[in-house]
Amino acid sequence: MSSNTFGTLFRYTTWGESHGPAIGCVVDGVPPLLDLSEEYIQPFLDIRKPGQTRNVSQRQEADQVKILSGVFEGKTTGTPISLFIENMDHRSKDYGDIKDKYRPGHADFTYDKKYGIRDYRGGGRSSARETASRVAAGAIARLILKGVSIEGRVTQIGPHKDSAEWESFLDKIRKSGSSAGAIVEVVAKGVPVGLGAPVADKLDAAIASAMMGINAVKGVEIGAGFGAALLGGEENSDQIRIKDGKPYFLSNHAGGILGGISTGQDIVVRMAFKPTSSILTPMKTIDRYDNETEIVTKGRHDPCVGMRGVPVAEAMLAIVLADHLLRHKAQCGDRT
Amino acid sequence: MSSNTFGTLFRYTTWGESHGPAIGCVVDGVPPLLDLSEEYIQPFLDIRKPGQTRNVSQRQEADQVKILSGVFEGKTTGTPISLFIENMDHRSKDYGDIKDKYRPGHADFTYDKKYGIRDYRGGGRSSARETASRVAAGAIARLILKGVSIEGRVTQIGPHKDSAEWESFLDKIRKSGSSAGAIVEVVAKGVPVGLGAPVADKLDAAIASAMMGINAVKGVEIGAGFGAALLGGEENSDQIRIKDGKPYFLSNHAGGILGGISTGQDIVVRMAFKPTSSILTPMKTIDRYDNETEIVTKGRHDPCVGMRGVPVAEAMLAIVLADHLLRHKAQCGDRT
Amino acid sequence: MSSNTFGTLFRYTTWGESHGPAIGCVVDGVPPLLDLSEEYIQPFLDIRKPGQTRNVSQRQEADQVKILSGVFEGKTTGTPISLFIENMDHRSKDYGDIKDKYRPGHADFTYDKKYGIRDYRGGGRSSARETASRVAAGAIARLILKGVSIEGRVTQIGPHKDSAEWESFLDKIRKSGSSAGAIVEVVAKGVPVGLGAPVADKLDAAIASAMMGINAVKGVEIGAGFGAALLGGEENSDQIRIKDGKPYFLSNHAGGILGGISTGQDIVVRMAFKPTSSILTPMKTIDRYDNETEIVTKGRHDPCVGMRGVPVAEAMLAIVLADHLLRHKAQCGDRT
Amino acid sequence: MSSNTFGTLFRYTTWGESHGPAIGCVVDGVPPLLDLSEEYIQPFLDIRKPGQTRNVSQRQEADQVKILSGVFEGKTTGTPISLFIENMDHRSKDYGDIKDKYRPGHADFTYDKKYGIRDYRGGGRSSARETASRVAAGAIARLILKGVSIEGRVTQIGPHKDSAEWESFLDKIRKSGSSAGAIVEVVAKGVPVGLGAPVADKLDAAIASAMMGINAVKGVEIGAGFGAALLGGEENSDQIRIKDGKPYFLSNHAGGILGGISTGQDIVVRMAFKPTSSILTPMKTIDRYDNETEIVTKGRHDPCVGMRGVPVAEAMLAIVLADHLLRHKAQCGDRT
Repeated sequence: MSSNTFGTLFRYTTWGESHGPAIGCVVDGVPPLLDLSEEYIQPFLDIRKPGQTRNVSQRQEADQVKILSGVFEGKTTGTPISLFIENMDHRSKDYGDIKDKYRPGHADFTYDKKYGIRDYRGGGRSSARETASRVAAGAIARLILKGVSIEGRVTQIGPHKDSAEWESFLDKIRKSGSSAGAIVEVVAKGVPVGLGAPVADKLDAAIASAMMGINAVKGVEIGAGFGAALLGGEENSDQIRIKDGKPYFLSNHAGGILGGISTGQDIVVRMAFKPTSSILTPMKTIDRYDNETEIVTKGRHDPCVGMRGVPVAEAMLAIVLADHLLRHKAQCGDRT
Repeated sequence: MSSNTFGTLFRYTTWGESHGPAIGCVVDGVPPLLDLSEEYIQPFLDIRKPGQTRNVSQRQEADQVKILSGVFEGKTTGTPISLFIENMDHRSKDYGDIKDKYRPGHADFTYDKKYGIRDYRGGGRSSARETASRVAAGAIARLILKGVSIEGRVTQIGPHKDSAEWESFLDKIRKSGSSAGAIVEVVAKGVPVGLGAPVADKLDAAIASAMMGINAVKGVEIGAGFGAALLGGEENSDQIRIKDGKPYFLSNHAGGILGGISTGQDIVVRMAFKPTSSILTPMKTIDRYDNETEIVTKGRHDPCVGMRGVPVAEAMLAIVLADHLLRHKAQCGDRT
Repeated sequence: MSSNTFGTLFRYTTWGESHGPAIGCVVDGVPPLLDLSEEYIQPFLDIRKPGQTRNVSQRQEADQVKILSGVFEGKTTGTPISLFIENMDHRSKDYGDIKDKYRPGHADFTYDKKYGIRDYRGGGRSSARETASRVAAGAIARLILKGVSIEGRVTQIGPHKDSAEWESFLDKIRKSGSSAGAIVEVVAKGVPVGLGAPVADKLDAAIASAMMGINAVKGVEIGAGFGAALLGGEENSDQIRIKDGKPYFLSNHAGGILGGISTGQDIVVRMAFKPTSSILTPMKTIDRYDNETEIVTKGRHDPCVGMRGVPVAEAMLAIVLADHLLRHKAQCGDRT
Repeated sequence: MSSNTFGTLFRYTTWGESHGPAIGCVVDGVPPLLDLSEEYIQPFLDIRKPGQTRNVSQRQEADQVKILSGVFEGKTTGTPISLFIENMDHRSKDYGDIKDKYRPGHADFTYDKKYGIRDYRGGGRSSARETASRVAAGAIARLILKGVSIEGRVTQIGPHKDSAEWESFLDKIRKSGSSAGAIVEVVAKGVPVGLGAPVADKLDAAIASAMMGINAVKGVEIGAGFGAALLGGEENSDQIRIKDGKPYFLSNHAGGILGGISTGQDIVVRMAFKPTSSILTPMKTIDRYDNETEIVTKGRHDPCVGMRGVPVAEAMLAIVLADHLLRHKAQCGDRT
């Protein structure tokens, strides 16, 4: 709908640039009387925050979240929850060189062409820093999803699916000033059957939008995903049996979603992160006055942004599921 | 937003089941004074319609579109355009057998669990028949996209990327009562730079939602897509030069979108279609009373639904681009 | 949101012009398993339809509604309900004279200036005929509002509050080719406490939008309304007591809404209808080529459109309440 | 849509309670390259803020606005603008008495019944303090409305239309611990013809929603408003002539809006504010445990809230017009 709002009933609106005074978001539609505190949200942000290992951005941020509204005496009130995170370490000097040059593979070019102006300090609005807000919103979404667990993990870094190879590969990438892509998988267990809706509000369509909206993601698949194109119908269709009086499926090629609606099986989503465009190799580019030039990006960046994408992907899945759970309750809640 | 409405400014709302009297949609937000007639829309529907070759569903439908409102003396009036397509050949008798049984891989199970009721004749609302409405809406969207061409094609059927092998492969599939998956690619050329928006309204997120919302699609990727995970930053980042006084890119791994905003390069989208679940092999399943049973689906179906997905994917891309073009004009139109 | 869609969870999208082949709407978000038939909706349309007494438009319309989707074996399926009403008596010849001239007080001028084109036959989209769709949608909304009654009535015609004077006043108006305004009041009884929300989604704001959106309405008030400006706080504030273990109010100046949320008292809404601009007295106007001229409107019109506004106002109130009931259930349903 | 978001393209989302640490809003959809600073917004807030004369609340608030995002080097960037206003003087002790009792005429009762919890300090979210955010958002909306002036004024206090009587009347009201209602009129001059849309997005419907959504407003009318019910069609319909080559109207009973679309005449809106429910007279009420009791509200309140409603009503009108201007540009901008 709006450029910075996501969701229908459970919805957040984010704001803030990487080098402004703060970032944050407003989370609306939260049911009342849920236990909520800054202490509950903080650990989710701590997982995402930079500077924790040598293979992620060395930017130092406390990422301390403050709740400014919507909570009274430790409980949600049903009114909008304003979350606020101060930017501490925004060393703008690092970015002076890219003020007028466009970094290949980065949003510099498109922002400038669209708006005619951009906050060039560290990517401004297009910085992955904005995703801290989504992680905080996702923590609140989880409160609505009782009995649902959502967990993500990196399954591939560059060409390597074996995690034993990752550390040495990343050391090499980091030292050479290069960057690597990654595949991330998120699984939601315990999702009730019936979330989603036909046609324009398919649960998988909402998930695809949520994941493709994460910085650096270039592909999203659910269940068998692109691999489903290789299968025959007999193999791909998940057969159904009864166990302990309940339906269960003999496989999960559907990734937990059929016809846009959750089946009750695990929801399995995978996404591809491109390698970050901030690299030390000089790249051919132009400046905003259409002069050809070269650029080297010297900021503190992640050699593999996909690794830090895990908590963001988890948060986005929680947000989509919480929104659809509320919507399902509205339309079909009397049946259950 | 709503379960059957897609888009913000250019938006359509679809209705109708595969075996009801008719299907259709309401297209809202169309600028006035565009030339529009039934004769203009019909060819787009003719491409999608079934029964044209032996390797698609043999259902016979005229798919004749009627415009019921929003057009006066051959021009759009700016008011909602109601499109109406009668269902001619809805032989319900074919579906009696699946009244109480859930077809594995189909939406039967989830609809029943969500709503407690479903129109079991031919999939009802989950039938691919609904996509005829989207194709018609897409034809109108193209009117807004002057200078933009949108073309899709099948690039893979089952495991075969070489189109010379497709016909014999599909014959084999069809005769054995099985089904095959496919990969479809859609390319939009001539898209202006600047469409889309950061964070919640990224153009790629909207495209991902649109494509994943097409029946049987299980994966979506843009530009290098999942392949981007394998590349280093130097390779993946598209370098920029000037030619004839204009920026151009030395490659297009971004698929025409950076930071959620169009670059002016070709927008390249690929999606994976699963094999249809309607197959002649008996499959283990349950009925709605939780009894274990088997099912064989005998209806007239597509051995490879991906093939008929091409015009739908083209339509959805047109709809997303038209919507974002109008939105861009609203916010940034004074600059251009 | 969109120009022709109203509501968030329970929502309708209308289409059609007064002199096209048909009008209709798509109603989305309806819970499944409600009993719904054409026979149930028809009586609501019969009340609204023209040609029934001498003091309303003499246009003859069967206003026969058809349900094209979303209902299966007499029950709603949870998918969009397409309602279809054919236009029978659209004698376009009556309107030739106003093709190029703007009727003062009518939407001719603004449509032409906005869109550069308009369907001049009978007002096209701005015709009160479109309200038949809303009445049909309102009938469906009532199914969701179990235990709620919604009834409207005319309380004033022209300057006359005493209904005994209305018939002779209207005869005089009609014979002189003039028109009269009216006040309509709608009361909803049995509305549960808690519908609505603070700030942007106040229940009274939604009602105001719904009512002001009815053709010819120029003012809306709730409870004491404009009269509240004359009162002191002691008088206006409704005191609360307990009766039979339940809260009740000693008065209802609030009209059933406090802080944007329903109190459980009767919701009382009043609105002012202007006199229709279609009158036989020659009026000064211009044509679309900016020539000064005069106009007399000879079509079949209502001397007092407010009278036919009653079922429309009832329908709109039902739609707003149904939407907010579903939304309340989503956010706070676990509490009740 | 969401409970705390208003508008489609130009939209704000507000957050914050009267006695929390701060209030604020996020304004989205603002075109880029507009001059914007805290110094520009502040004067609009200064007009609204309390404690300035003896006849308004004596709460002392600096109401100093901070811009936290969306502005770079003095210009809007097209990304969301976060506005932040600290709460300075939130003396919670005044409110201890009403912790469990419901003030008649106030939102206490409905909030508690809806949410089962409320921030009882000063009304929490239902406090008029929230309107500071709307005033700030309105200041930004004005930047989009070049050539449009929007001015409001009180036209009636209690029963008094003559402003000479107001001061003594209010002194009497204040000293007696009572409160008075008021009528406010807002006029927008210079609005271009063509804003708004038929049926669900009528400009007058949006204005009605915006105004009825202001705290304490119980009625809204446009142009002749409720008075239109008394007129005949000849009198009410504004005749049209040409002057200096341009259309002009001989009267403005329509209040600048016909068929939901602006005519280019002055847009004239009036609204009724009820007397505040915070009065010194003991009133019958109940507590949250359903005990009958009495209450006297001792906080620092406005004897006539309508007076402070003027800048809020101006802001809301600016917001509606800015939103519709952008929407009109999107759909019909190529024509103008």
